[in-house]
Amino acid sequence: MRNTLGNLITVTLFGESHGECVGAVIDGLPAGIKIDMDYISREMNKRRSVSAISTARSEEDIPHFVSGVKDGFTEGTPVTVLIENTDAKPADYERIKSIARPGHADYTAQVKYRGYQDASGGGHFSGRLTAPLVAVGSIVRKALEDKGILIGTHIDSLNGIEDYDFNWDDLENDLRTLNDRQFAVLNDEMAERMMERIKSAREDKDSVGGVLETVISGLPAGIGEPSFSSVESELARAMFSIGAVKGIQFGAGFRFAKMTGSGANDPFRVVDGKIVTLTNNNGGVNGGITNGMPVVFSTVIKPTPSIGKLQETVNFETMENVELEIKGRHDPAIVHRARAVVDALTALVIADLICIEKGTGWLA
Amino acid sequence: MRNTLGNLITVTLFGESHGECVGAVIDGLPAGIKIDMDYISREMNKRRSVSAISTARSEEDIPHFVSGVKDGFTEGTPVTVLIENTDAKPADYERIKSIARPGHADYTAQVKYRGYQDASGGGHFSGRLTAPLVAVGSIVRKALEDKGILIGTHIDSLNGIEDYDFNWDDLENDLRTLNDRQFAVLNDEMAERMMERIKSAREDKDSVGGVLETVISGLPAGIGEPSFSSVESELARAMFSIGAVKGIQFGAGFRFAKMTGSGANDPFRVVDGKIVTLTNNNGGVNGGITNGMPVVFSTVIKPTPSIGKLQETVNFETMENVELEIKGRHDPAIVHRARAVVDALTALVIADLICIEKGTGWLA
Amino acid sequence: MRNTLGNLITVTLFGESHGECVGAVIDGLPAGIKIDMDYISREMNKRRSVSAISTARSEEDIPHFVSGVKDGFTEGTPVTVLIENTDAKPADYERIKSIARPGHADYTAQVKYRGYQDASGGGHFSGRLTAPLVAVGSIVRKALEDKGILIGTHIDSLNGIEDYDFNWDDLENDLRTLNDRQFAVLNDEMAERMMERIKSAREDKDSVGGVLETVISGLPAGIGEPSFSSVESELARAMFSIGAVKGIQFGAGFRFAKMTGSGANDPFRVVDGKIVTLTNNNGGVNGGITNGMPVVFSTVIKPTPSIGKLQETVNFETMENVELEIKGRHDPAIVHRARAVVDALTALVIADLICIEKGTGWLA
Amino acid sequence: MRNTLGNLITVTLFGESHGECVGAVIDGLPAGIKIDMDYISREMNKRRSVSAISTARSEEDIPHFVSGVKDGFTEGTPVTVLIENTDAKPADYERIKSIARPGHADYTAQVKYRGYQDASGGGHFSGRLTAPLVAVGSIVRKALEDKGILIGTHIDSLNGIEDYDFNWDDLENDLRTLNDRQFAVLNDEMAERMMERIKSAREDKDSVGGVLETVISGLPAGIGEPSFSSVESELARAMFSIGAVKGIQFGAGFRFAKMTGSGANDPFRVVDGKIVTLTNNNGGVNGGITNGMPVVFSTVIKPTPSIGKLQETVNFETMENVELEIKGRHDPAIVHRARAVVDALTALVIADLICIEKGTGWLA
Repeated sequence: MRNTLGNLITVTLFGESHGECVGAVIDGLPAGIKIDMDYISREMNKRRSVSAISTARSEEDIPHFVSGVKDGFTEGTPVTVLIENTDAKPADYERIKSIARPGHADYTAQVKYRGYQDASGGGHFSGRLTAPLVAVGSIVRKALEDKGILIGTHIDSLNGIEDYDFNWDDLENDLRTLNDRQFAVLNDEMAERMMERIKSAREDKDSVGGVLETVISGLPAGIGEPSFSSVESELARAMFSIGAVKGIQFGAGFRFAKMTGSGANDPFRVVDGKIVTLTNNNGGVNGGITNGMPVVFSTVIKPTPSIGKLQETVNFETMENVELEIKGRHDPAIVHRARAVVDALTALVIADLICIEKGTGWLA
Repeated sequence: MRNTLGNLITVTLFGESHGECVGAVIDGLPAGIKIDMDYISREMNKRRSVSAISTARSEEDIPHFVSGVKDGFTEGTPVTVLIENTDAKPADYERIKSIARPGHADYTAQVKYRGYQDASGGGHFSGRLTAPLVAVGSIVRKALEDKGILIGTHIDSLNGIEDYDFNWDDLENDLRTLNDRQFAVLNDEMAERMMERIKSAREDKDSVGGVLETVISGLPAGIGEPSFSSVESELARAMFSIGAVKGIQFGAGFRFAKMTGSGANDPFRVVDGKIVTLTNNNGGVNGGITNGMPVVFSTVIKPTPSIGKLQETVNFETMENVELEIKGRHDPAIVHRARAVVDALTALVIADLICIEKGTGWLA
Repeated sequence: MRNTLGNLITVTLFGESHGECVGAVIDGLPAGIKIDMDYISREMNKRRSVSAISTARSEEDIPHFVSGVKDGFTEGTPVTVLIENTDAKPADYERIKSIARPGHADYTAQVKYRGYQDASGGGHFSGRLTAPLVAVGSIVRKALEDKGILIGTHIDSLNGIEDYDFNWDDLENDLRTLNDRQFAVLNDEMAERMMERIKSAREDKDSVGGVLETVISGLPAGIGEPSFSSVESELARAMFSIGAVKGIQFGAGFRFAKMTGSGANDPFRVVDGKIVTLTNNNGGVNGGITNGMPVVFSTVIKPTPSIGKLQETVNFETMENVELEIKGRHDPAIVHRARAVVDALTALVIADLICIEKGTGWLA
Repeated sequence: MRNTLGNLITVTLFGESHGECVGAVIDGLPAGIKIDMDYISREMNKRRSVSAISTARSEEDIPHFVSGVKDGFTEGTPVTVLIENTDAKPADYERIKSIARPGHADYTAQVKYRGYQDASGGGHFSGRLTAPLVAVGSIVRKALEDKGILIGTHIDSLNGIEDYDFNWDDLENDLRTLNDRQFAVLNDEMAERMMERIKSAREDKDSVGGVLETVISGLPAGIGEPSFSSVESELARAMFSIGAVKGIQFGAGFRFAKMTGSGANDPFRVVDGKIVTLTNNNGGVNGGITNGMPVVFSTVIKPTPSIGKLQETVNFETMENVELEIKGRHDPAIVHRARAVVDALTALVIADLICIEKGTGWLA
């Protein structure tokens, strides 16, 4: 519960944005999984800043494994990763520490922790907490890839600008292309337009949001559990740990609301001796269990709440109405960065579900 | 995990649609909670059929408490509810037991359980499994009401027909009105049109879906935990246990994708000595923790997959393509019925989260 | 937690001694495990009365599977077993319901549940709750046997009368002999003397306790997890759910206190190309993980607290000192009956631990 | 599961003896608990070496809190403690890394982790892992003390030398005396004799074991849950995470085996308007729930397996029988050191159980 995710492969998250470090313990990984530092660094970099369009804060974000790893392989014991907060500047926040930044957790943290929390930069609620998730999730994601299970995410839309759809006939190719890209958009022109939009938001001292679409290919049918450990339940639980995620949908998702059953149902067919569905409105999941089609889901990322514009808010200590102009560092969008976190969490959830039936030994 | 929900107040679900019974064990309820059978029956009835627009199957659905209840009060020990399957007609399904009904879990269950599963009527994946959830959830929902926490759901839209919005200035009144209604729509004319739409779907041997909007009022700020037990994570995990739910969003949800930060952020203000937000795009949740505003979320309910129309599918035993015309009993819509399940699950999740800090004793 | 045991294969226990039924839900069993009713009945009978030396209460204790079982095999979904309380006589207890029976949970239940509990016959704390444990545990124990993992328990001592030691050179033979016996003693003469001792305790309106020694053979090395899911941690947690168990020890257990390291350490040796230990003071477990030797542990069963002798106690409602002479039904010993429960719980724990690495699919 | 303990207040343990550090994450602590570094250091020192009678290895063992603590108070978020392995000398172990030290987890770790584990000094199975347990447990133990719940442990016996019994009429005094002592023995003469015995074991290149008796005073009646979260189940699960613990018993424990019910039952009496028991054979626990009397339990600590004497064992890589003379550092006894770990774990378990009913907020 709380800061721990997973049934068999569990991740426990800790740290504050401007404390000494952020980190995670991943338990349940079998011995002998390779720690591919290049792979992990690539993912960590995706989560970090893309110069012109992201925050100026530039932690090096080097994951430091202090337990459970020896000679580049997991030992079978809990793997702990620490990521130092080298660039912490609590002073930036001191001035505003009793002022609730709208859209942030400052006020709710204050109510819950009664002033004992480290409020600087969001503290435990900061997006920085997703860095260790990417580190440990990437270990698992790489192990899944080695078994033919590929995960990828693109920016389906950013402030209304829409990327092209996946080429479902050559999905793996699209996923590999995406995974090589720092800015996860399939169509180059749309990528350009999205980046322009982010820059213009920055100029406006404002921010924008968008929708990420994630696909898992190579997943066999039969993964997931009924009721509360369905593929949908477990992925949703994980995704909502990202502060900016405010919605998730599988397959046709909210478009189902206007469909009829005859249009919504995915007809099964035997093709080349294998059972497939002709459409994939259900996003590869029936009754919470994978049906062998690509698993498809979307998450909505709200516009970054830290904006430079003048905002109305309160000082929760003096209980006065105040105006706030956030200086410090902030992103005009995090959609493109959140993608690395979504991929990492997806890997953690899927591996965990597979291991229920196949055991953690399967992952080695 | 799996068929068990909750951290402190846990619900374990069991049963098959055409087996002997469906049921649930709820553990963690303190002693001394009143079992209000009228309240529970009212909710059970909402989940059941509304004559003209629902399935002809009419189980009496009487919840039978076989443990943990004495003289109308919880004993403090696990409460087990059984609901007999009095109207089971496995024969209806015998003919099609190797034929995967599109949109259902027949095929995925077959892969997972290798033919050992009870396939009739969806077996463990049947909507009937939500009946015990309503029974145990209603105990908790009533206990929350007695403490001023009110939960209510309306059909936000059905196949494109939209209900009116809540009157946010007199929310509790709307919630009470809704809770008295069998068909959860605020506006009578829209209710009429929705029911007409359901009837016409039935005539077409087809079905329709829609969106449910749920509101929790009276919830104090500070409820929910960081990371994976956020209000959003826990509610989402619970909701996706309903087979027909394919998406969930909080507050503005997917509409955030086209908003800017300056429009999306909810300004805090001190009003009458209390901190509120002027808008509620975040649905009452910041950083996964309640901020004292009404918690608002929507779930999309896909069109009932059981339709009378001829459908293409497969016989997964003979591995042949076949055509299927589902006879048996089925609903042209379950949006209006799912609402009782959503309310029950919401109560279970919220009570569980409150008890983390306040203890299970709080609920008594 | 609480009434739920296990990580992957979970058992949730419910019911009150004089309520409608007692029962359990076991979740996580893969589809296709045979339900051997003869095997289960044999174990249920061991837990029940042995005429002359046990309670006169004689429930038939027929386990009734209401979910998760079809045509004699598990379906893969939660298996629920109900056992009716056909012989409940709450009236026997009505007279003494505010009087705390010494050694029982009457007073602690009263404090915890504030009078809402069903006090008759111990309610939820009754030994009857172990009946469903035997039912579901026997399913798993049989499945383990089919894979060469044999569990058996004998009465190591009863009120000081000691059974012979296992013949470690032909352990499986001893285990099979024991498992065929209703009264779990290896040596016939000692069995006779123990039964005499139980009868004489009955004549004295008193009761006796003893020690059970349990062995698991055929368990490979490498089972168990470090820290809190060690074989010892998990078995101990399970055993202490039996009300009468007040101690557990592995291998030499408390005898280690007087040993030296040179005498206590079990020397490893290669014998016939296999690593074994020459002694087994550690009971087959090093660092919480099996080493391939038989796992050996003992549990102490306290004398049955229900005795006919006059006892001093209190009426916790009137807060007066009173004298109590328990009429009703009671056992002069439960050591011989507890053995079936210990075997069942052992199977549940061991299977659960194996499945962490091998997955639940392994059990099918 | 595995390396995580607790229901509401959870501790996740990580690290290897000769890796970079050992540590723990404790989640669920409410904001505002004081971190009393003097208290923690005192307990850490008890766990460390007592010059003449313990290992020469002398880590400074300074607990370094890297998350969840600000200005000397818990923040409400996960608290992570790291303890550096400043004195690690893997080279000492290199020579013997394929040789199974008898009584240790070297061989079982090899089977489980297939050579990927860090074998030096026991790796993850080292007693060093108990250092972070003492650090986080001491935070909780101090918080319990501030609420009148006192925990203390003495060496009940060491290699047959027995300490005096507690003075039950002035228990708190004894507990405070013990808690001030580095060597936890009530009677000075017995302490002297035990220390002599430890020294003579060292001279013999051998080691000795013993029994620890732990008492909790000030605990109200009604703590603990039925079935698998009984006070006994949860304490036992925690204690067996200590590698050297091979048995646990409550109250009269294994002595119950020779008692009769009339002698074993603790008569309830009303004394000064309060319900007490005249004896405490049940160790303050009836049916798994506290009855208001002191909770009393004993754990047996086996002789340290690392001894200087020549031992027979195997090289598990070459599969040869070998002789082993352990050089390196080792203790002739750890009974006196384990006491700090038992106290810390007891605090964690008891606080966790209290919070189920009272919520984590209770602890602040």
